[in-house]
Amino acid sequence: MNIIEIIEKKKRGFKLEQEEIQFFVDGYVGGDVTDYQASALLMAICINGMDFEETFNLTMAMRNSGDIVEIPGYDRVLLDKHSTGGVGDKSTLVLAPILAAMDIPVFKMSGRGLGITGGTIDKLEAVPGFSSLLTTEQMVDIIQRVGCLDAAQTANLVPADKKLYALRDVTGTVDSIPLIASSIMSKKLALGTKGIVLDVKCGSGAFMKSADTAKDLATTMIEISKRAGRKCIAVLSDMNQPLGYTVGNKLEVDEAVMFLKEGLCEPLFKELIYVLCYQMYLISDRNDGLDYDNFTKRIDEVLQSKKSYEKLLQMFEAQGADLEKVRARYDSYGNSFESDAEYKRKVITGDILKDTGTLDSAFTITKLDAETIGKVSLALGAGRLKKEDDIDLDAGIVFEKKLGDIVKPDDVIATLYSNDSGKLDSAYEIITGSDCICLSGVDKQSIEVKNDIILDVLS
Amino acid sequence: MNIIEIIEKKKRGFKLEQEEIQFFVDGYVGGDVTDYQASALLMAICINGMDFEETFNLTMAMRNSGDIVEIPGYDRVLLDKHSTGGVGDKSTLVLAPILAAMDIPVFKMSGRGLGITGGTIDKLEAVPGFSSLLTTEQMVDIIQRVGCLDAAQTANLVPADKKLYALRDVTGTVDSIPLIASSIMSKKLALGTKGIVLDVKCGSGAFMKSADTAKDLATTMIEISKRAGRKCIAVLSDMNQPLGYTVGNKLEVDEAVMFLKEGLCEPLFKELIYVLCYQMYLISDRNDGLDYDNFTKRIDEVLQSKKSYEKLLQMFEAQGADLEKVRARYDSYGNSFESDAEYKRKVITGDILKDTGTLDSAFTITKLDAETIGKVSLALGAGRLKKEDDIDLDAGIVFEKKLGDIVKPDDVIATLYSNDSGKLDSAYEIITGSDCICLSGVDKQSIEVKNDIILDVLS
Repeated sequence: MNIIEIIEKKKRGFKLEQEEIQFFVDGYVGGDVTDYQASALLMAICINGMDFEETFNLTMAMRNSGDIVEIPGYDRVLLDKHSTGGVGDKSTLVLAPILAAMDIPVFKMSGRGLGITGGTIDKLEAVPGFSSLLTTEQMVDIIQRVGCLDAAQTANLVPADKKLYALRDVTGTVDSIPLIASSIMSKKLALGTKGIVLDVKCGSGAFMKSADTAKDLATTMIEISKRAGRKCIAVLSDMNQPLGYTVGNKLEVDEAVMFLKEGLCEPLFKELIYVLCYQMYLISDRNDGLDYDNFTKRIDEVLQSKKSYEKLLQMFEAQGADLEKVRARYDSYGNSFESDAEYKRKVITGDILKDTGTLDSAFTITKLDAETIGKVSLALGAGRLKKEDDIDLDAGIVFEKKLGDIVKPDDVIATLYSNDSGKLDSAYEIITGSDCICLSGVDKQSIEVKNDIILDVLS
Repeated sequence: MNIIEIIEKKKRGFKLEQEEIQFFVDGYVGGDVTDYQASALLMAICINGMDFEETFNLTMAMRNSGDIVEIPGYDRVLLDKHSTGGVGDKSTLVLAPILAAMDIPVFKMSGRGLGITGGTIDKLEAVPGFSSLLTTEQMVDIIQRVGCLDAAQTANLVPADKKLYALRDVTGTVDSIPLIASSIMSKKLALGTKGIVLDVKCGSGAFMKSADTAKDLATTMIEISKRAGRKCIAVLSDMNQPLGYTVGNKLEVDEAVMFLKEGLCEPLFKELIYVLCYQMYLISDRNDGLDYDNFTKRIDEVLQSKKSYEKLLQMFEAQGADLEKVRARYDSYGNSFESDAEYKRKVITGDILKDTGTLDSAFTITKLDAETIGKVSLALGAGRLKKEDDIDLDAGIVFEKKLGDIVKPDDVIATLYSNDSGKLDSAYEIITGSDCICLSGVDKQSIEVKNDIILDVLS
């Protein structure tokens, strides 16, 4: 076999055999296939596509390129949840403790953020003392004792994906369903879980901008899971506006904690958590036949009893957090979110209005663009453009108002936070200078703000 | 501007602007654009194509990446001839002296062979003392004094093509008309010539396997030339069987020399030379209105007078050859071609016949596959698979019979030569073990051997 023949085959639009895909992946990880050969093949895949068989074979070849992380001797149905990435998405931190409190174990390996997409591992660095670097022994212990954990991917988890993803990022070959699906699923299938719930984000702040492509991706990933013998459900959720009230690492941990501790939550975010938890429940070994309405009551009870808050604290402690500091922070936390950053700047309705003749009116927020807000967050220092970039854990945005809310000219829509005043100014320019936030007069008849968080559930 | 955006634009099938193409070529030559980014873009171009405007802009950006070789103070219409590459193609060595003898100057920069395609510069190394490395001053002198030369490309002639070609070769991105046309024409337009005759080869031993793609390539190159202000004619010629009687470096020089010295020539090869010379004449400043028939008489006179043979010797001498040795070789050369190689092996009709019951018959050669013969030549040591490979100048093949000839079981079809007996054996296995040479009984009614050398002339 010869890599040039494989590249030319895909260039001409033919299907690659399992052996050819394996040869490519092994060769690329081993160094026999060069970056420039891999990028030529990736481009041919982007343009000419891959059928399901090829996508599955690529996923498995990638999965088998490194460690397989098992929990030895554990016979429960261990579940995983994965989000395709969005702005303000702190779902994992809320969902895992709720499920663990219901005795549904959640085994999560998370990544770091890149571009406008945040990563759970970064967020968790805002918890004093917390470590996401766990040995297999630690993972076994925490899953058995606590019921949930959030670990960073081990250095040798799917090395093929690490190399391919870095290459795709700089060669314009990111947006391909076979490549995205195999990248995600190779990592999911490298964990010894029995079921996966996928939160496939869709909208301006997501990889998938349209519901159609999001659905295609979801369907492909579900089929891959099933073929690999795993249960899988995909929830398609909206990512046209940021999720919840906060964007930024420490702010998002605060929001997750206050959700569990005080039930402080934005309604659409709450709906997403409930739906995701229900799907996890359905494929768990604790499924006792509740319908969605009755299951939500069970979540309400768990939250009210503070059991899920205690679960989160147990997980924090098991992963090295200084619980005294954590408790101290949240015992004195107020009813609204506030960053520890040195500088802050409010964005009021009047900053957005271009037509000053309308200053007496009230307005509906018709757009709160997740992609631009992701860029604002990056500008504040909360994210990284390149892997090597440092993150300002305090930087971020707190929204007082969300899509569909009615605002008056002097209402605060959001507050920006950063430890760098220059960055704060740049971010303010972006959020007010673009059409990130759009407003319409409330008296206009035709205003209809589409505002559903759950777009579809596929299995 | 940003290379990833440019790659993605072509990936989506959009047209690239001149500035974007320039940015890519400059960036790649300068090192800001990496190999893996270039190969992704090349693959997108292979699959999604480029329109004429883009192809022209790519050609010019490549052309301008290095030296422009001019003949200062020379006001004659200087002509160039280019073959897209084939097996046994020694046309340049015959054509340039014939034209120079008619006072039509020919300025040729040639390359080395790679794969099954030979290169004139390699062939000329078989001439004792000959050097293809010329300074501009030497080129000016030789053109004015002799009227023809054959120089190797200068180190800095179209560096963009050197880099891109090497990358295409290892990334499965060779067979794209915009990429082939820009590669050839960037080098042609980097020479200060006023007209170009292209010999576009078509068939199994050529890049272009079908007449349709050869025609597309020819049309594209003609349009590029014209847009750049050069006269251009393309001859489409057959490359399903090797050209002439010989394949191999020194053997091909022998054939070229004996064509000029004694008129010893294979008829189809002669026809190609005459047609190419006529097209060169048509765009020269010595065009005095002859039609093709009358022009062929003029060539016959030149050959008979030995003027073109003397021109070749003058060119050899001007480029450093030891004329005494050259004259000595050809003054004693016989009527058939014979290599100086240590080992030889005959291929007789009986070696090809699979059906021994037909040993009494006579047969027509219905196929003499140029591609396989190119591989036989490589196996003998006459060519190189990689740029660094050494060449056996004596190695090669002499054909006694060609396509359409009638042969008896004990007739010699070809003789293989090599200085390595192991290579000779491997080559013999290839030529007899494949369906490189096909035979049909002469008594069969339906035999029709298509055997035209000139397929089309486009301008």
